[in-house]
Amino acid sequence: MPDSLTRINSDRLYAALDQLGQIGRYQDEETGLQGVCRLALSAEDGEGRRLVVGWMKELGLEVRVDRIGNVYARRAGRRADLKPVMLGSHIDSVPTAGRFDGCLGVLGALEIVRSLNEHKIETLRPVEVAFFTDEEGCRFGTDMLGSAVACGRLSLDYAYELKDRDGLRLRDELEKIGFLGDCDEHVTPPHAFLECHVEQGPMLIQKGVEVGVVSGVQSISWQALTIVGKSGHAGATPMDLRADAGVAASMINLKLREMIATGHYGEMRATMGAMTPHPGLVNIVPGKVEATVDLRNPSNELMQRSETDLLAFYEEVQKREKVEIRWRQTARTPAVPFSSRLQERIVAAAERAGLSHQSIIAGAGHDAQEFAAICPAAMVFCPGEYDGISHNPREFSTPKQCSDGINVLLEVLLQLANQEDL
Amino acid sequence: MPDSLTRINSDRLYAALDQLGQIGRYQDEETGLQGVCRLALSAEDGEGRRLVVGWMKELGLEVRVDRIGNVYARRAGRRADLKPVMLGSHIDSVPTAGRFDGCLGVLGALEIVRSLNEHKIETLRPVEVAFFTDEEGCRFGTDMLGSAVACGRLSLDYAYELKDRDGLRLRDELEKIGFLGDCDEHVTPPHAFLECHVEQGPMLIQKGVEVGVVSGVQSISWQALTIVGKSGHAGATPMDLRADAGVAASMINLKLREMIATGHYGEMRATMGAMTPHPGLVNIVPGKVEATVDLRNPSNELMQRSETDLLAFYEEVQKREKVEIRWRQTARTPAVPFSSRLQERIVAAAERAGLSHQSIIAGAGHDAQEFAAICPAAMVFCPGEYDGISHNPREFSTPKQCSDGINVLLEVLLQLANQEDL
Repeated sequence: MPDSLTRINSDRLYAALDQLGQIGRYQDEETGLQGVCRLALSAEDGEGRRLVVGWMKELGLEVRVDRIGNVYARRAGRRADLKPVMLGSHIDSVPTAGRFDGCLGVLGALEIVRSLNEHKIETLRPVEVAFFTDEEGCRFGTDMLGSAVACGRLSLDYAYELKDRDGLRLRDELEKIGFLGDCDEHVTPPHAFLECHVEQGPMLIQKGVEVGVVSGVQSISWQALTIVGKSGHAGATPMDLRADAGVAASMINLKLREMIATGHYGEMRATMGAMTPHPGLVNIVPGKVEATVDLRNPSNELMQRSETDLLAFYEEVQKREKVEIRWRQTARTPAVPFSSRLQERIVAAAERAGLSHQSIIAGAGHDAQEFAAICPAAMVFCPGEYDGISHNPREFSTPKQCSDGINVLLEVLLQLANQEDL
Repeated sequence: MPDSLTRINSDRLYAALDQLGQIGRYQDEETGLQGVCRLALSAEDGEGRRLVVGWMKELGLEVRVDRIGNVYARRAGRRADLKPVMLGSHIDSVPTAGRFDGCLGVLGALEIVRSLNEHKIETLRPVEVAFFTDEEGCRFGTDMLGSAVACGRLSLDYAYELKDRDGLRLRDELEKIGFLGDCDEHVTPPHAFLECHVEQGPMLIQKGVEVGVVSGVQSISWQALTIVGKSGHAGATPMDLRADAGVAASMINLKLREMIATGHYGEMRATMGAMTPHPGLVNIVPGKVEATVDLRNPSNELMQRSETDLLAFYEEVQKREKVEIRWRQTARTPAVPFSSRLQERIVAAAERAGLSHQSIIAGAGHDAQEFAAICPAAMVFCPGEYDGISHNPREFSTPKQCSDGINVLLEVLLQLANQEDL
């Protein structure tokens, strides 16, 4: 019964994304496009926050700011004693961002509230719209910071002492932009947490799917490798006397592909994003390579297996190529599955709306994964043009791509906010 | 009969190397050692040239400078009508050099003349000691420049118009340091050309061999590759939708190893010295890689075969990894075999002196290869410590390592300069 569904105003949402996207705008040299730079707790972030808080207040929401600068805006339900359904994401950005990313989740949630108000729809439970401090982690080095503090993974003290590259303390910067609130940083677990975000990948757009039903967040393992071989003249060093760090890096890079092809590691993804040979000259055998390995896996067990097997392969390469491979773990997060019951509701809502949908694993970290530790949580992904490129001024989703995801969220919200149980 | 052999004064040669090495010296940050920077036609090169010309004159040699700045110093023989035996190399350096490299060949030749004078040894043929302009090619971009002009491969006009990165013209720079001579740049083919040089590789030192008998110069083929794939988020881009330029580069790097292992390409050497992924971040699939390929082969035919087969492999990688591989040839020189009769004489001289010796292919280019086009030419390599590292302040050969090679050269010179035929 698609006609009976409540819908958001797509143009209004798009106009809000555009308005917020003017704050922190810059002319991007590489793409020639207008980009967005609204680093966490910068003056631009402060300006963006004030714009969004203004909208929250216009919508009659009750706004509170906690001690880590997370902002919560509450729309009352008929039963004040019931836990709210929370919708949220973040509005801070990477240095070279587009207008969508987490903004879609926050402004989409506000557009949902605006639509509820417009249609005079009351809910049983309260509805809260939230945005969280420094999700990107670009400035202070820890991503999902605000939601991690709210959900208890990180302490307020830890967060306060973080410094940016200029030595500026996070707490001082919060205060400077006027968002050092006084509410308890520990959020009361909501009834459910829902987040909409752009996919940041090519799957939905390439397969022509309108709504991504996020099954969870992958486990992430990052390694920094220093491969030490022996520099030598490319013409004068016989092949059998070489210890070529570049060849060793290439072996590891192709091993990652081989491991995936075996199927032994489930839905493993693997990337060697950096591999810089020294001295990096045409006629010198690379004596050293700095490389990185990025492993992702929705299964913690299979992630563990891939790491173990990769380390064994490093041993093999050390012997075969006479190099030394030093590695250190630079990041490691476990897989977080999202609530299967919420995923079912998202699927049902998409079907009622006649939208194509597909289960998809989140490639990057999101605030919803922090909430998954304290309540049922789920996410909806919207497709992005240009293979879903993100963290780039080319990031672009059409009004329909944005509103399809937000409409599904609205539908699920209406169910959750009107029922006592999940 | 080793005792009957004429020998050079090893300490005197070493002191001369040290004295020339003071000109253009700098404190090298990376190694903490004193390095040498005497770029072709720089003020330092001018100073070095004047020091060496001064020594030539002290030895009673007749010095002439040609129009490309090559310097020839002649010691008369009993028969002025016979062609001279020429000994030579270069004294210009790369920006981060040691004290040996070509200087050993030039100062070793002068030490040979000094020893002949000291022992009052006359020769039938004249003996000439030469050093050539801009062998390194670091400043004006064309290596073996002076010898290539002298032997007719490059024209004087071409050389004169070369510019350095500041736009300074080679002819003006020659004039500025006072080495724009007026002798014909085309050298009269000598009876034979002999050059001593440090190996610039690990073979002699690792095998404990005292004298390298150079069989020739390898063919060199350089390619610059631009591999264009598609950037993507390492977490969000499914493996089957990737076009990873870094993986493509790794495939090519390992293919080079495979090709060598087949044995189908003779004594091929191959190196991927540069492979820079863009953007080069841990969590981004490389969308572009700039890489280089350096191929060497003593056989022109097998070089050609390796190039053809490598291009076919690029086609395969383009399909397999969905990337575009653009390549251009940045250097291509043919293999130059040295005179087998001169090699036999070098072997015999080493044996008479009780020195271990081994045939070795030159990995880099040398002035002797230009002379190989107009007369019998050959080279002797001296081992270097630290795996023969060169073009680096760590470049180091002991007094014995230097004098072993120069003594062999002296012995061969005495034969050649006293016979009418080779």
